[in-house]
Amino acid sequence: MPLPRQVFIAVIGAGGVGKAFLSQLQQVASNLSRSPSTPTYLSLILLSTSQKSVHHADYKSLNNWESELANSTTPPLPLPQLVEYLAKAPDKVVLVDNTSNQDVADSYPLFLKKGISIVTPNKKAFSSTYQLWTEIFSAAANGTGSGGYVFHESSVGAGLPVISTLKELVETGDVVRKIEGVFSGTMSFLFNSFQPVNGGGGKFSAEVKTAKEKGFTEPDPRDDLNGLDVARKLTILARLAGLKVESPTSFPVQSLIPKELESCSSGDEFLARLPEFDSQMESTKNEAEKEGKVVRFVGSIDVSNNKVKVGLEKFDKSHPIAALKGSDNIIAFYTKRYGDNPLIIQGAGAGGEVTAMGVTGDLLKVLRLLQ
Amino acid sequence: MPLPRQVFIAVIGAGGVGKAFLSQLQQVASNLSRSPSTPTYLSLILLSTSQKSVHHADYKSLNNWESELANSTTPPLPLPQLVEYLAKAPDKVVLVDNTSNQDVADSYPLFLKKGISIVTPNKKAFSSTYQLWTEIFSAAANGTGSGGYVFHESSVGAGLPVISTLKELVETGDVVRKIEGVFSGTMSFLFNSFQPVNGGGGKFSAEVKTAKEKGFTEPDPRDDLNGLDVARKLTILARLAGLKVESPTSFPVQSLIPKELESCSSGDEFLARLPEFDSQMESTKNEAEKEGKVVRFVGSIDVSNNKVKVGLEKFDKSHPIAALKGSDNIIAFYTKRYGDNPLIIQGAGAGGEVTAMGVTGDLLKVLRLLQ
Repeated sequence: MPLPRQVFIAVIGAGGVGKAFLSQLQQVASNLSRSPSTPTYLSLILLSTSQKSVHHADYKSLNNWESELANSTTPPLPLPQLVEYLAKAPDKVVLVDNTSNQDVADSYPLFLKKGISIVTPNKKAFSSTYQLWTEIFSAAANGTGSGGYVFHESSVGAGLPVISTLKELVETGDVVRKIEGVFSGTMSFLFNSFQPVNGGGGKFSAEVKTAKEKGFTEPDPRDDLNGLDVARKLTILARLAGLKVESPTSFPVQSLIPKELESCSSGDEFLARLPEFDSQMESTKNEAEKEGKVVRFVGSIDVSNNKVKVGLEKFDKSHPIAALKGSDNIIAFYTKRYGDNPLIIQGAGAGGEVTAMGVTGDLLKVLRLLQ
Repeated sequence: MPLPRQVFIAVIGAGGVGKAFLSQLQQVASNLSRSPSTPTYLSLILLSTSQKSVHHADYKSLNNWESELANSTTPPLPLPQLVEYLAKAPDKVVLVDNTSNQDVADSYPLFLKKGISIVTPNKKAFSSTYQLWTEIFSAAANGTGSGGYVFHESSVGAGLPVISTLKELVETGDVVRKIEGVFSGTMSFLFNSFQPVNGGGGKFSAEVKTAKEKGFTEPDPRDDLNGLDVARKLTILARLAGLKVESPTSFPVQSLIPKELESCSSGDEFLARLPEFDSQMESTKNEAEKEGKVVRFVGSIDVSNNKVKVGLEKFDKSHPIAALKGSDNIIAFYTKRYGDNPLIIQGAGAGGEVTAMGVTGDLLKVLRLLQ
């Protein structure tokens, strides 16, 4: 019978996802410590934001991270020093990266090679250059390496079981032919409001404004409308399906930012001028309507033909993608085994709690592997 | 770096699922043996059906199971002897139970206590008495015990990630409030044909006949229509969600077998007399239609109020359950984190290949834990 054991947890990022994760961590740690067969003691040894860090030279557990972080005057450790600090810990370490920081992502191979495992929703690590992807998985024990484990379920669809399902399809020998879906909560909300299945919907610029007011967009809505967020998610899934996608800009991505507004100096200026271009979107909408269809912003990976693309597509009103509600994501896997009716996963694909859930679920997977 | 290692595989059952599994096993074994970091050698040491068995005293690998099984005259080992045979194997063993046999299921605690892991689509093990459930999970290492691991993804929704998703919701601390869905491919096909969203559909007895002809029912369709198959799946999910469900008959289950036909001596007699009762189903259908709804055979678990039930329900035509196609399953998880829009999983929930996929996926999970 395995002995009781301790695992160190280091967390970077204390924003919406970070805070939700820390709360879930507390609950999970309490459950694990009371496990009758193999109690596990999770010890939070580091919490770091872009401004400051809390950690102790003797790896003492942070028992009240909120006040310790609030009172800290220590700047965050530079990444090479963070690697060294964690590598020298007297027990196994899981790094939880709850940022969307490229520099942290670029350091993953270093952490992994030192035996530090990583769980993260950070898309940048898995959707930047193909070289970084290769370096990460040739270092990781669940790749071809012998270092730490790396899991990133929440990098696509937040807590929805998208990545684990795709991995299982591939690993059990199914042939994935096509992956298609709505991968952005913002785009989902925007188009479900712009062209509801039962008719109606406002001007496109008005819907963008509403979405921003409701907190469904990034602070600058152009960061959603340029399609890059969806392109990053597609890059990750395409690579898991076996395609060698060089970067999220190496395939066609339709931006919903009119060319004339690309040079706007602020999000506010952009929003003020967007109504000038409503007629374009209106004609797209009407064209779909004439065919009995609705327009949606989707991503698709045609695995068989090695084609990835992101942009507007028309769907029959009875199609599951058309019938989506609120800001839900939907992901359909067309495979040899599932035939004409795809395996579909649907639900909230953004938000602090559900994103953190994917991270916490990954942490539990790593803990089982570290036994 | 972990060393190359061997794991023994013993398979019971060589029907539709069993054969598909053996084919997937061959592919997976070939991949694992070529893994650059930690090659794993899977060795099939036993294959047994209800009629015969192939295995060798020295645990020699079966390299051509089809011909070896065809030529075998050895009867299957009695279960206690099978336990002993596997327990004495010189390496770790995973038992793959591809039957729906209650006796095999009843022996799971014995296998697990001897350190033998189990992967299976056999619903009987997890949906019979609550005592058997308790014995299994108090023996298993992924329960509260120290024996082998047990996984049973395919016992609900075949290869769809239903059980793993529910487990993750619970383990990461979400509050599961309700689980609702169509859990039977047969019932899905029957009602999608009987009352399509866009109108039409034949008499109920005629649809049952068609479903049987297309191979969508059990040889005796009463085994689908009595609702027990769905009740077993609900029992499993309810227990995973924390409810202490005593058995699949301890909550209301609506049978679609008219009382007057319960005493029919054969499936054929039943099918011949079923048209006498079409008017009942027709009035249920018309009643739904008047409300702008359709009728579907669903299972639901109201976790908050500890209520499980199986039977006919009416759904708005725009509801995802109404819009289901073919013989697909759909499972919706309503939780605290996911709010009003549930996490939905949808796709084929029956068939040899997709059921075997869930089993193969579970085998991979066990192999990672046995490292």
